[in-house]
Amino acid sequence: MKIKTLPPIVKAAQKATYLCLYEEIKKEILAHRMQYGDQLPSIRTAAKQLGVSVTTIENAYQRLCMEGLICAKAQRGYFVDVSERQAAMHQKIMQAVPHEEQDSKWMDLRTSSMDASLFDGTLWMHYLKDVLAQERWIMSYGDPQGEWILRKALVQYGYAMRGVLSKEDQIVVGANFQTLLYLIGSLYEGKRVIAMEESGFVQGEQVLRDLGFTIRYLPYDDAGIRMDALKAQDIGLLYVNSASCGTNKKAMPQMRRSELLAYAKAHHILILEDDHNGELRYQSRMMPAMQGMDMGHQIIYLRSFSKLLLPSLRMSYAVLNDSLYQRYLRRKPNYHPSNSKIEQLAFAQYLRDGHMEKQIHRMRRRYEEKSTALWQLWRKRLPNESIVLDESALRFLYTPKQDVQAYIDCAAQASILIQRHGAAIALSFAAHSTQELQHIVTLLIDAWQEAGLVG
Amino acid sequence: MKIKTLPPIVKAAQKATYLCLYEEIKKEILAHRMQYGDQLPSIRTAAKQLGVSVTTIENAYQRLCMEGLICAKAQRGYFVDVSERQAAMHQKIMQAVPHEEQDSKWMDLRTSSMDASLFDGTLWMHYLKDVLAQERWIMSYGDPQGEWILRKALVQYGYAMRGVLSKEDQIVVGANFQTLLYLIGSLYEGKRVIAMEESGFVQGEQVLRDLGFTIRYLPYDDAGIRMDALKAQDIGLLYVNSASCGTNKKAMPQMRRSELLAYAKAHHILILEDDHNGELRYQSRMMPAMQGMDMGHQIIYLRSFSKLLLPSLRMSYAVLNDSLYQRYLRRKPNYHPSNSKIEQLAFAQYLRDGHMEKQIHRMRRRYEEKSTALWQLWRKRLPNESIVLDESALRFLYTPKQDVQAYIDCAAQASILIQRHGAAIALSFAAHSTQELQHIVTLLIDAWQEAGLVG
Repeated sequence: MKIKTLPPIVKAAQKATYLCLYEEIKKEILAHRMQYGDQLPSIRTAAKQLGVSVTTIENAYQRLCMEGLICAKAQRGYFVDVSERQAAMHQKIMQAVPHEEQDSKWMDLRTSSMDASLFDGTLWMHYLKDVLAQERWIMSYGDPQGEWILRKALVQYGYAMRGVLSKEDQIVVGANFQTLLYLIGSLYEGKRVIAMEESGFVQGEQVLRDLGFTIRYLPYDDAGIRMDALKAQDIGLLYVNSASCGTNKKAMPQMRRSELLAYAKAHHILILEDDHNGELRYQSRMMPAMQGMDMGHQIIYLRSFSKLLLPSLRMSYAVLNDSLYQRYLRRKPNYHPSNSKIEQLAFAQYLRDGHMEKQIHRMRRRYEEKSTALWQLWRKRLPNESIVLDESALRFLYTPKQDVQAYIDCAAQASILIQRHGAAIALSFAAHSTQELQHIVTLLIDAWQEAGLVG
Repeated sequence: MKIKTLPPIVKAAQKATYLCLYEEIKKEILAHRMQYGDQLPSIRTAAKQLGVSVTTIENAYQRLCMEGLICAKAQRGYFVDVSERQAAMHQKIMQAVPHEEQDSKWMDLRTSSMDASLFDGTLWMHYLKDVLAQERWIMSYGDPQGEWILRKALVQYGYAMRGVLSKEDQIVVGANFQTLLYLIGSLYEGKRVIAMEESGFVQGEQVLRDLGFTIRYLPYDDAGIRMDALKAQDIGLLYVNSASCGTNKKAMPQMRRSELLAYAKAHHILILEDDHNGELRYQSRMMPAMQGMDMGHQIIYLRSFSKLLLPSLRMSYAVLNDSLYQRYLRRKPNYHPSNSKIEQLAFAQYLRDGHMEKQIHRMRRRYEEKSTALWQLWRKRLPNESIVLDESALRFLYTPKQDVQAYIDCAAQASILIQRHGAAIALSFAAHSTQELQHIVTLLIDAWQEAGLVG
């Protein structure tokens, strides 16, 4: 260990002297010309040597300290503080190459986007602007439970559109379904066994397993989970997607709802009702949420607005029942808000002004047209292969006779991206226009036919 | 049960006929003049009776179905579907009164906000606008791990400002600290015992308990957790706030860092490093994060930007170490994004353009001024009572001799809101201007002196 001499400053136009010096020293360290443990000259000495001010040296040293390249030891001075391996890592970070943008040659039928023409970005911007103009709102943390004004708007919206009976107090706003499930799963104190349709729900299962739940997968018929299968289990929670369930992927019929609810009441089972886009009906009859049937004693209601508003926004909420709400109230100080307050407040005004309902009307018309066009094309080309419409998820499900992977690979060769859904293939009509869809699905069926996968 | 006659339509100007009819029927139901099980006339009959089109009746019925007030039974017709108790609940929702805005008579020294004048809302709006103009970006789901472009910006920022050594792949963006802790706690497979300073961290503890961790609270000295206390425990995880620890509430000194890290390595303990506003130094010397010392083998780095950017935005990230990253990669499809993609992309550009660094420079100047003014006022008024500056949390901590609650109650009587922090009182200088602060703290000390709480 010895005191190193600093490199000369290579002055660049428009750049502070200390930054130039900092860069020269950094180069020395990363090239191992200054090594771990080497001492740098004192600030005064360096200033004299280089003919610059003490402040310049101080600033350069502080910047190097901040990056962890050198460290200051009290009463002793500044020392190089990176090993050779670390230096190599430093250099990698500095040379990071830009990430390739996703290749645009693909035609995407996966369920990860929505129809851009349905959302009025200018309108949304207008609401964001209104919120950002309110300094008092944006300079403070939000309510961990969600902004009161948004919860109020959600009470009214849930009531008018889905028949959900709630008070503002019972509502918890969360970034996504998983955030809400972590909360509910940890507030819930009963038997840690949950049942769901055997097709599963990976993101939900992850959370439930994290919280120590055992998951029972139950067989289903066209109306949802089979009652006989349910009765054979000893469970504490039941997860149902009341807006899209069973083999039909339709809203759960009234009869099955009543049966489920009566059974849950009798056996003290808490139902987690996922009302996944329940208001997005364009081919079948609308049904209200189950939650309104029992006034939320036995049912926790869960909603996400990703597909209805913007997938890039994170906005979900839960309506807790009385007992979970009481527990939540005691624990509320233990939680941080999980949503942008700005987006919450903008969304509250958006709801209040009735834009969500208008948006849904637009969506219904558009998706009715798309799903009909796709259905007709399919019936014409493949009259012997049946597909099921999953309205709330904006897709058709096709269960082929052979292995799903062969169909996905064959599609990929034709530059078409499709997604597996259990033993089925999901064909989403969310993102593309009707014309584009007809084009892509024609190419898809052509490819499958050539490969002998369909008749 | 009998078929009820519909009420006459009371036509209002500017309102669709079906909505007028819907409202009249709703009134009947909520006033119990139409009761649970009562049948409504068929659509055709009702249309004839009221002299309106079939569509008008259909629309009114559908709206009532949506709210769960009536239900449709196949082959039978429409029936009233709310009980008396439900009807009462319906009426309550419709009559909800607006929430009282928070009373403004309070002077707030709690740590829940920041100085509004430090944030450039117009600039942020500009970035949001740029993002919203990119349809392709906002119409699709984000990456559960966080947008790549943001992770890249965070790599560079963390490196330049905090000496954090990371690759984009190791970074996970989350709505808040709790989201990240749920993730880390569930990826972690070692011994489920975690140690932290005995002052605790309620929101973190909630998550860790949810995930089945046992928490050991360790005593600390002026440099952080005491090594002897640590060595007496058999733990798997260690939580440290390296930017504000021990009785000093300063960055952890180099010596203690080295000791901790060496001990953690030898005993395979994973360190969760909370670098809470580590770059926000205005009175003491800046130190880089610990993470850079071991290149992230033994350390998971955690950061939130609430206090540096906007508390109303939710933006945190973690740098996983190699082993957790490998596990995360396998599980990544199980996670949904937890942050608004729009805000992530805006933040990425904001970082890339160097605004975060400028913002921090502004903050340093402002908070240096405020903390100095408050310190001088306190020394003058209460020379015998010591207070500790907690730089990264933008507050002073005062540990009174008597019970904290008496001080809080006394402040409340003078319309000043203050917050408890363990056995101390936190006095935040984040939100108010220097002048306002001097005014409020003078009133506070006056009140305490009058009550005989301070000398």
